[in-house]
Amino acid sequence: MTDRAVVLVSGGLDSATCLAIARARGYDCFALSFDYGQRSVSELAAAKRVVESQGSIEHRIVSLGLDALGGSALTDKNLAVPEDGTEGIPVTYVPARNTVFLAYALAWAEVIDASAIYIGVNALDYSGYPDCRPAYIDAFQNMMNLATKKAVEGGTIVLHAPLVEKSKADIIKAGMELGVDYGLTVSCYQADEVGNACGLCDSCRLRKQGFADAQLHDPTRYR
Amino acid sequence: MTDRAVVLVSGGLDSATCLAIARARGYDCFALSFDYGQRSVSELAAAKRVVESQGSIEHRIVSLGLDALGGSALTDKNLAVPEDGTEGIPVTYVPARNTVFLAYALAWAEVIDASAIYIGVNALDYSGYPDCRPAYIDAFQNMMNLATKKAVEGGTIVLHAPLVEKSKADIIKAGMELGVDYGLTVSCYQADEVGNACGLCDSCRLRKQGFADAQLHDPTRYR
Repeated sequence: MTDRAVVLVSGGLDSATCLAIARARGYDCFALSFDYGQRSVSELAAAKRVVESQGSIEHRIVSLGLDALGGSALTDKNLAVPEDGTEGIPVTYVPARNTVFLAYALAWAEVIDASAIYIGVNALDYSGYPDCRPAYIDAFQNMMNLATKKAVEGGTIVLHAPLVEKSKADIIKAGMELGVDYGLTVSCYQADEVGNACGLCDSCRLRKQGFADAQLHDPTRYR
Repeated sequence: MTDRAVVLVSGGLDSATCLAIARARGYDCFALSFDYGQRSVSELAAAKRVVESQGSIEHRIVSLGLDALGGSALTDKNLAVPEDGTEGIPVTYVPARNTVFLAYALAWAEVIDASAIYIGVNALDYSGYPDCRPAYIDAFQNMMNLATKKAVEGGTIVLHAPLVEKSKADIIKAGMELGVDYGLTVSCYQADEVGNACGLCDSCRLRKQGFADAQLHDPTRYR
């Protein structure tokens, strides 16, 4: 049996690249996305387009109910998305988001007997997000090694974060080489229903700068 | 402000005791339960009764959609609940369940600025569940220390598992001293709608034995 990987796919640029990397490494990929009350409904539509364009064995979308716990501009419609490049941990940080995402990835990995989990987190661009750092990824791996039936029986599931120390420009270059169509992805925190980006939020700024630094054409549709 | 604790409450004997311990330690308790497609609908009714009887600032029930990922006799109606005390990791093990539960607890703890999370896992009675062991709890704590905005800003959230090394009899004795009404709790993996227990599944066996060992009256209603 070909090795299986659960790949977290948000519909953004990073996770599209991450899926392409997992596929290039020969895994049978099982794509996992979440409906967590995010403002941007176009994110899930983008996730579907990305998975369809690259191909995967399965694509599941799990509803989290995370919005019931509140606390982020990405899920709480009473908080404004900042457009001024604020320092520190942004209000768009969703509490414990990657921990919740990875917990589900681990559950599915156990069920389908996957040997790998891929997550497209990036420490350089999102220095304000604690759960995008290499030390966090290592600690999650250690916890995983004790958490599962498979671990108890001597197997392991390896958590891969291939983009964690890459610049946005390098991520884009790597994805382009693997044939990722970035026109299908949506990075904007407040994209409209058809995926047109604001061009102003932190995520749009990073993406724009990444294409500029990579000296590659940016296929993003700005409104 | 009184310190806040997120307490995982399943409706079973252990978590009812755990809530009583957190309350006795002086925390303002925020009870968290999950609807994860478990067979036993009476579990959630029991969780509500337990929280009401002991009192909490809030009680939230989050829908997980974990059943969509399959793999356990507790969520998959095509798998039978064993009644013969099978060795090893039982089919009632839910993949990565405590990891998913604790991830949500962490998210809520961040949002409400709690300094503690309480989980009523027990390593002795459930030796077949990898995510009930002390080493797992320690590893989750390490991961938590890197995962949150609060951690980055120098604060900590402490994960407490006060029952982890206690026998079922000692748990029952501790709870009785704190006034826990075990008649409100449901442990059975296949309780009927009103909470009557089968008396045959692993969980019923452990509970029965616990009351017997503690030489205390078992208020469980068996059908």
